[in-house]
Amino acid sequence: MLYRKWGNKEDEVVTFTSSIDTDNYILNEVKLTMKAHVIELYLQKIINRDYCSKVLNAINSFNSIPAGYEDIHEALEDHIIKNAGEAGEWIGLGRSRNDHVATALRLKMREELISILQNVNELRQLLIDKSKDYTDTLFPSFTHLQFAQPSTFSHYLLYLEEELSSRWNIIFDSLKNVNRSPLGSGAIVGSNVEIDRNRESELLGFDSVIINTISATSSRSDLISSTMELTNLMLSLSRIAEDMVVYSTLGLVKLPDNHVSTSSLMPQKRNPVTMEILRSKAGECIGFLNSMMAIYKGLPSGYDLDLQEINKYFWNCTMIVNKSLLVLISLFDGIKVIKKDLDPSMLATDEAEKLTQSNIPYRKAYFTVADKVRAGTFIPSINFTESINLKKTEGSPNPNILLNDIKYAQDRLEFDKKKLNNYIQNITQKISQLEAIENDLQEG
Amino acid sequence: MLYRKWGNKEDEVVTFTSSIDTDNYILNEVKLTMKAHVIELYLQKIINRDYCSKVLNAINSFNSIPAGYEDIHEALEDHIIKNAGEAGEWIGLGRSRNDHVATALRLKMREELISILQNVNELRQLLIDKSKDYTDTLFPSFTHLQFAQPSTFSHYLLYLEEELSSRWNIIFDSLKNVNRSPLGSGAIVGSNVEIDRNRESELLGFDSVIINTISATSSRSDLISSTMELTNLMLSLSRIAEDMVVYSTLGLVKLPDNHVSTSSLMPQKRNPVTMEILRSKAGECIGFLNSMMAIYKGLPSGYDLDLQEINKYFWNCTMIVNKSLLVLISLFDGIKVIKKDLDPSMLATDEAEKLTQSNIPYRKAYFTVADKVRAGTFIPSINFTESINLKKTEGSPNPNILLNDIKYAQDRLEFDKKKLNNYIQNITQKISQLEAIENDLQEG
Amino acid sequence: MLYRKWGNKEDEVVTFTSSIDTDNYILNEVKLTMKAHVIELYLQKIINRDYCSKVLNAINSFNSIPAGYEDIHEALEDHIIKNAGEAGEWIGLGRSRNDHVATALRLKMREELISILQNVNELRQLLIDKSKDYTDTLFPSFTHLQFAQPSTFSHYLLYLEEELSSRWNIIFDSLKNVNRSPLGSGAIVGSNVEIDRNRESELLGFDSVIINTISATSSRSDLISSTMELTNLMLSLSRIAEDMVVYSTLGLVKLPDNHVSTSSLMPQKRNPVTMEILRSKAGECIGFLNSMMAIYKGLPSGYDLDLQEINKYFWNCTMIVNKSLLVLISLFDGIKVIKKDLDPSMLATDEAEKLTQSNIPYRKAYFTVADKVRAGTFIPSINFTESINLKKTEGSPNPNILLNDIKYAQDRLEFDKKKLNNYIQNITQKISQLEAIENDLQEG
Amino acid sequence: MLYRKWGNKEDEVVTFTSSIDTDNYILNEVKLTMKAHVIELYLQKIINRDYCSKVLNAINSFNSIPAGYEDIHEALEDHIIKNAGEAGEWIGLGRSRNDHVATALRLKMREELISILQNVNELRQLLIDKSKDYTDTLFPSFTHLQFAQPSTFSHYLLYLEEELSSRWNIIFDSLKNVNRSPLGSGAIVGSNVEIDRNRESELLGFDSVIINTISATSSRSDLISSTMELTNLMLSLSRIAEDMVVYSTLGLVKLPDNHVSTSSLMPQKRNPVTMEILRSKAGECIGFLNSMMAIYKGLPSGYDLDLQEINKYFWNCTMIVNKSLLVLISLFDGIKVIKKDLDPSMLATDEAEKLTQSNIPYRKAYFTVADKVRAGTFIPSINFTESINLKKTEGSPNPNILLNDIKYAQDRLEFDKKKLNNYIQNITQKISQLEAIENDLQEG
Repeated sequence: MLYRKWGNKEDEVVTFTSSIDTDNYILNEVKLTMKAHVIELYLQKIINRDYCSKVLNAINSFNSIPAGYEDIHEALEDHIIKNAGEAGEWIGLGRSRNDHVATALRLKMREELISILQNVNELRQLLIDKSKDYTDTLFPSFTHLQFAQPSTFSHYLLYLEEELSSRWNIIFDSLKNVNRSPLGSGAIVGSNVEIDRNRESELLGFDSVIINTISATSSRSDLISSTMELTNLMLSLSRIAEDMVVYSTLGLVKLPDNHVSTSSLMPQKRNPVTMEILRSKAGECIGFLNSMMAIYKGLPSGYDLDLQEINKYFWNCTMIVNKSLLVLISLFDGIKVIKKDLDPSMLATDEAEKLTQSNIPYRKAYFTVADKVRAGTFIPSINFTESINLKKTEGSPNPNILLNDIKYAQDRLEFDKKKLNNYIQNITQKISQLEAIENDLQEG
Repeated sequence: MLYRKWGNKEDEVVTFTSSIDTDNYILNEVKLTMKAHVIELYLQKIINRDYCSKVLNAINSFNSIPAGYEDIHEALEDHIIKNAGEAGEWIGLGRSRNDHVATALRLKMREELISILQNVNELRQLLIDKSKDYTDTLFPSFTHLQFAQPSTFSHYLLYLEEELSSRWNIIFDSLKNVNRSPLGSGAIVGSNVEIDRNRESELLGFDSVIINTISATSSRSDLISSTMELTNLMLSLSRIAEDMVVYSTLGLVKLPDNHVSTSSLMPQKRNPVTMEILRSKAGECIGFLNSMMAIYKGLPSGYDLDLQEINKYFWNCTMIVNKSLLVLISLFDGIKVIKKDLDPSMLATDEAEKLTQSNIPYRKAYFTVADKVRAGTFIPSINFTESINLKKTEGSPNPNILLNDIKYAQDRLEFDKKKLNNYIQNITQKISQLEAIENDLQEG
Repeated sequence: MLYRKWGNKEDEVVTFTSSIDTDNYILNEVKLTMKAHVIELYLQKIINRDYCSKVLNAINSFNSIPAGYEDIHEALEDHIIKNAGEAGEWIGLGRSRNDHVATALRLKMREELISILQNVNELRQLLIDKSKDYTDTLFPSFTHLQFAQPSTFSHYLLYLEEELSSRWNIIFDSLKNVNRSPLGSGAIVGSNVEIDRNRESELLGFDSVIINTISATSSRSDLISSTMELTNLMLSLSRIAEDMVVYSTLGLVKLPDNHVSTSSLMPQKRNPVTMEILRSKAGECIGFLNSMMAIYKGLPSGYDLDLQEINKYFWNCTMIVNKSLLVLISLFDGIKVIKKDLDPSMLATDEAEKLTQSNIPYRKAYFTVADKVRAGTFIPSINFTESINLKKTEGSPNPNILLNDIKYAQDRLEFDKKKLNNYIQNITQKISQLEAIENDLQEG
Repeated sequence: MLYRKWGNKEDEVVTFTSSIDTDNYILNEVKLTMKAHVIELYLQKIINRDYCSKVLNAINSFNSIPAGYEDIHEALEDHIIKNAGEAGEWIGLGRSRNDHVATALRLKMREELISILQNVNELRQLLIDKSKDYTDTLFPSFTHLQFAQPSTFSHYLLYLEEELSSRWNIIFDSLKNVNRSPLGSGAIVGSNVEIDRNRESELLGFDSVIINTISATSSRSDLISSTMELTNLMLSLSRIAEDMVVYSTLGLVKLPDNHVSTSSLMPQKRNPVTMEILRSKAGECIGFLNSMMAIYKGLPSGYDLDLQEINKYFWNCTMIVNKSLLVLISLFDGIKVIKKDLDPSMLATDEAEKLTQSNIPYRKAYFTVADKVRAGTFIPSINFTESINLKKTEGSPNPNILLNDIKYAQDRLEFDKKKLNNYIQNITQKISQLEAIENDLQEG
C-alpha cells in the first residue's frame, strides 16, 4: 500500500474492496492515461525532460498488477516511484485516481465499442451476401407465432440486417458521448497546477473535454448509456435465437452441425444449443445492466467507490456481444433452408386482396374468405410463388423488390463502414502525436 | 367486435387481452395514421374523392373508444364503416393493425421525446441562469460522501447542466431513430396493393421509411432504446435528489417550502419529500425498462401480442420524466444556500500542492500534510476563498473559470435549442401537407 | 391539509408526492388500523367510552378520500376531528402515519396473499381433475424444444400442478412473515404513552408483533419478499404460456375459442392471444419487482417517502397474478388435445434401453441406435403406447404410475387447503373480538 | 467429446455453449450424485458389486474437468469409462445429464444456503452481544434522513437483528423447498429401468422427492426463489451500509480503520469504502436475479440449455452474501459511537406528549409545540436521557425495555440455531448411509 498508513493489507476487509480483478482489464489504458499526464507535466515544465523520460520508462515496464495494492493506480504510482526515483514522486501532482480511472475507462470503452461496431458490420455484410442467394426461396412469415403469409428467406435475412443497422447507429452515437476526456479534473475540483486539459484530450484521441470537474470524475452516465444500447442489441439477437430454435423444431431450417448438440440419453436429438445460449446471453446482459443501474441510482455526487463495481459489467457485456455476433456469423454462414409444404390458408389474404379487384370492399372480401377458411372449403386460386410476386410494397418479399432492397442495404452499410473507419483514423492520428513525443523523449 | 366471429366480448378472458386503457393515449396518432392511409388510397385511385372525404369525416368524429372492442384499431374501423358506409369497408385494404399501431406509436413517441428535450433545455437554462448568482458562494464538494475540497454552488449547478447536456444529445439521437415510418408494411409482408410508403412517411413528418416490412411491423427496439436513455436521465436526476436530501440533513441548503413536508407526530420535521419521491421515481423507471426488456427478450419475429404490453411503460416513463424535470425547475428556482463553517482539513490538498512550489515532490508533500492532519496539528495557511481562487483547471470552481464555463454552457444550450427547433419545424411543415390535402378534400 | 402550515396544497409539487391514488386501495385497512388504535386508547383509559364511540362512528363514515390532503392518514384524521370534535384531536396520540401505514399495508397484503393462495389451489384442483381424463392420451415431451420422448397429456398437467404446489408453499411461508403487527411503534421510537402492542396485534388478527420500532415502521422486506415469490410464480406461469403458444403452432392442442383472436388482414389466423398476454405479464411483474428493489436498495433506516412508491407495485402484481390464474383455469377447462403423428425417432431411447436387456451396456446401445437414426434406418420395435407403459420411474408418464401420482397430488392439495382454511379461521376469530368491542361501544 | 459425433471440439462455437467454468463449482456434488446413481444400479442388481466398486473408484479419481468436453457430466462419464472399462458403459442407463445436473445443483444450493444461515446467525449473535453495551448510549433516530427523536445505539443494533431474523426465516423456508430430489427422473420422462427414487433421495440427504419428472428436470423455480430471498437479504444489508456512510459523514460513528481508505490527492479523507462496496453489492445481486429471471421467463417446458447459464448467478450471489456478512461482523465488532450534541428540537414530540397530560388533546399540543419550533422559541423541559426513559412502547429505545428485547432476541436466535443444527444433523446422518455402502463396497 502506498496512500494509506493504517489497516492491514492482507485483511479480508481490504479484499472486499479491491478492484484488482477488473483493473487488469484496463491496464494498457491506465498506462496510456498516465503517459498523457506526465507528458503534460513536462510540457508545462513542472517536471524536466529527464524526469519525464524516466517516468515513461517506468510506466512501460509496468506489465502486471502486483498483490498488496488497493487498485492499479496505487500500484502503478508505487512502481513508478520505485523505478524512477524522485521523478516518480512528482506524478501525483495535479491528478487523482478519480480522473485517471474515468479516463482509462473511456479509452477502453471506446476500443470495445469500435470492435463491436466492426463486428456488427461484418454480420450485416454476411446477411446481405446471403440474402442474394435466397430471393426466390419460399419461407413462411409468422405473427403471433402462427403461420402468417408466404415470404422468402431473403426477406427474413434483410429484416435482420435492418434491425442491426438501426442498432449500429445509436451505438455509434453513444460512442461519441463516450469519447470525451475527463483527464486533468483531479479528485473533484481540479487542482492548483496549470494543466492544459484540451492538449491532454488531444493526445489521447478524445473528441473533446468534459468540462465540469465533478461531471468528469463522477459521472458514469455514458458508460451506462453504452451498456443500455448493447443490451438492446442483445435483445434483438435473442429474437433471432428464438426464431432459430423454433424454426428448427418446425423443420424449416437445418442449423450447422457445430451449432447443435445431442442428448446423453436420447440419441436422436439435434439440440440448437448455440441459439439457446445466445437467447440466455441477452438475459445475462439485462442482469448486467440492472447491476449498473441499481448501483448508480441515488449515488451522491462526487466519486463513490460503488462506481468501481459498475465497470466489470460493461466488460462482461461487450464480451458477450462480440461472441454472440461471431456465433451468428458462423450460423448464418452454414444454415440451410429446408423445403416444407405450407398450409394453403396462408394465402387467404392474397385471396381477399384479389377479390377487391372485382370491386368488393376489403372488409367484405375478408369475411368471404374467412368463412371459407373456417368451413374448411378454402382453396386458393394462386400458389405461394405467385403470392410473393404479387407483393407491391417497398420492403416486401417480392424478389424484384428484394433486389432493390439488397442494393440499398449494401449502400447503407458502405456508408457506415466508411464513417467508422474515418472515426478510427482520426483517433489513431491523434494518439500518434503522443507516441511521437514519447519516442522523442526516450531517444534523447 | 368486428374481426372475430367467435368468443364472447364480455368475457373476462377478452378483458385480459384488451389494450383499450392504453389505446386512449394514442387516439390522435391512430387517427392521423389512418388519415395518411386513406389519403394514400385516394392518391392511388383505389378509393375516389368522395369515399376519401367521407372516411376522413368519419375519422374526425371518432373521439373516444367505445366498449366492446379488442383495441382502438378495430373500434376505429367499425366506427368508420358505421359512419362512412361502403367507403369504410375499403380502408382495411393494404393495411393492418400491425403497421398502424407501429406508426401511431412512433408518432406519439416523437411527440413525447420532443417535449422532454424541451423540458431538459428549460432546466438547463435555469441552472445556467442560477449558476451566475453563485460563482463566489462557497460550497463543499464531496467524494465518498466525505467532505472533499472547497467548491462553489455555481460549480455544482454547472455540473448538473453538463450531465443534462450529454443526456440531451443521446435522447435526440434516439429520437432520430424513432422518427422513421413503418406505415404501409401491412401485417408482416406488405400487400398486393400499390402503396407509396415514402409519400405516407412524408405526410406524417417522418424522416425516412423503415424498409423491411418485418422490421417495420415487429421491431420495438427504438422504443426500448428511447426508454433506456430516459431511464438513464432519471438515474442522473436521482443523484441530484440524493444530494438534496443529504445536503438538507447537513444543513447546507434550505429547500423551498413546497418541497418539504412535516410529520404527524414530530412537529419539528422538514422532510425533503419531493426529492425522496424523485429518487424513487428513478427506481420506478428502472422497473418500467425491465418490464419492457423482459417482455421483448426472445420474442419470435413478427408481431406478437406481448408487444402491446410494452407501450404503457414508455408513457409511464415519459410522464415521470416530464414531472421530475418540472419539480427540479421549481426546486432550483427556490433553493437557498446556507452558509456553514466547514472543516479546515478540506484545505489539506491545497497545502500539499503549495508545498510542491518549494520543490517538494507531491507524494512527499502529501504525506507531510497527512501526518499533520492525523496528528490534529494541521493549520491551513490559506482560507477557503483563496483555495477556490487558486484553482487553475478548466471546469474547476475558480470563479473566473466558472464565468467562462457559464458562457460555454450557454452557447452549447443555444445550439441544442436551435437544433431541436429546426427539427420540430421540419415535422410541422410536412404534416401541414397532409392537412392541406384533408382541407382540400373536405371543401370539395 | 392538516399537519403542514406552509406550501400550497394545489401545488403541482404537492401532487408529485401525493399517494392518494394508491391509498384508495387500502382504505378499509387504514380504517381498521385506526379502530384498533382508538380502542386501545380507550382500553388504556386515555380516552373515555364516549370519545371512543364517537371516533369509531367517525371512522365508519369515512368512505372516500377527499381532495387536498397529502395522504389518506391526514384525510382520515381531519375527517375524525371534523366529525367527532375534541375526541378526534386525541387520536394523534401514540401513533404516527408511519406505524399506521405499515399496519394497513400488512393487513391488505395478508388479504391479497390469501386470495392468491386460494386461486392457486383452484387451478391445482382443475389440473388434477383434468389429468384424470388424459392418463392414456399420448403427448410429446420436449427438451431444448426438440421432440424428446413420448409422454401423456396427464403427465404434462401433473407437472404444472407440482410446480404450483411448491410455489404455494413458499407463498404461504411469506404470508406468515407478512402477518406480523407494526402497530403502536409510532414514527420510529414508539411513544411515551402506554400502549399494549400485543393486544392491538391480536385485535387485528396478526400472528405476532414486530418488536423493534425501527423495524416495524421502516422495513418493507416482507413486502418485497412476497412480491418476489409472486413474480416467481408468474415466471412459472409464463412457461405454461410459452408451451401453449408453441403447442398451438405445432398443432398439438386447440385452445378454447375465447383464448384466440384473429388478424385484421389475415382471416385464417387463430392467434393465442391470452397466452401471449400471460407471457408478457410475467415480464411486467419482473419490472414491478425491479421498481421495488431499486427503490428500496440503499435507503437509510427510518421511514423514507420513497417507501410510499413501492406499494402500488405489490397491488399491480397481485392483480396480475389473480387474473392470470383465472385465465389459466378457463384455458385448461376448455383445451383440446389434437392427435398428431409423431416422429418414430422419439422411441430411440426406448430402443437403446431395450438393447441393455441383452446385456449390452447403455453407452454402446446408445451409439448403436444413434448410428441408425442418423443413417435414416431406425425402425422402432415398439410403439408410442408401449413406450409409456414401459416407464418404471416414479413421476413418469406410465398411466399406472400417473394414477398413483394423481392420488398423491390430491392428498397434498387437501393438506394445503386445510392449512389455509385454518389460518383464515384463526384471523377471522381474532378480528371478531375487535368487532365485538366496537359493537359493544356503539350500542352503549 | 463423448456423446456427439459431429462438429469440432476446438470450435469457438462449442466454447460458446460450454459450462466448464461453472461446472467446477459443483464438481463434488456431481460426483456424489453419480455415486448415488451407481449404488442404486447396484442395489437394483443392474450392475454387480464389482462393477459398482470399479465405478465408485473411478468417480473418486475424478478431481478436475479436462478440456474438450461440453460439460462436467460428459467428462465424468468418459473418465469412468476410461477407468472402469465396461462397467463404465453401464452408468448411462436410467439417468441423464438433466436429472444429474438438477440433483447436483440442489445439493450445492443446500450447502450454500446452510452456510449463509449460519453466518446470518453469527452476525445476529454479534449484534445482540454488542447491543448490551449500548443500552444507555444516546443515538439519533432518523426519518426522511432528518433527525427524528432521541434513541440509543442498542435500539439501532436490535433493529438490525430483527431484520435479519425475518430474512433468516424465509431463507430457511426456501432451503426446505430446495432440498428435494430430482434424481432418477432421466431426461424428461424417467426411464424403463427400475430405479427407487426415494432411496436415492434418502442417500443424498434430501427431505423428499420431486415427483413429476418434467418438474424434476426442468424446473429452476426453487433456485430462483432462493436467490430472490438472498437478494432481499442484501437489500437489507445495503440499508445498513447506507446508514454507516451517512453516519460517518455526520460524525456519529467512527468506522474501524480497516474499513476506511484515503484519497491519493486529499490526505485528510477517511472514506467508508467497505460500506460503499457493500451497498453496491446489493445492486450486483439485483442484477444476478434479473439475469436469472430474464433467462427463465417464457422458456418452454423440458430442459433448455438456457438453464445452464442461470446457475452461476446463484454462486455469485451466495459468495457476495457470505462476504458481506463477514464484513459486517468485522465492522460492528470495531465500530465506535461518537458523542455528538443533537438539536433540542428532536424533543418536540416528547413535549407535545407531555402537554397531553394536562388534558390538552394531542393535535392541539402538537400545533402548540410546532409554532414554538418554527418561531425559534422552543426550549424543551426534558433532556435526551429523560426522553428515552419516558418511552413506554415495546420495542422502543427505553433502556429497561431494551433489556427485555435483548433477552427475547437471544431466545429467538437460540431457537433458530437449534432448528438449523437439527436440520444439518439429519442430512449428515442420511449421507453417512451412502458413505457406509461405499465403504462396504470398496472394502470388498
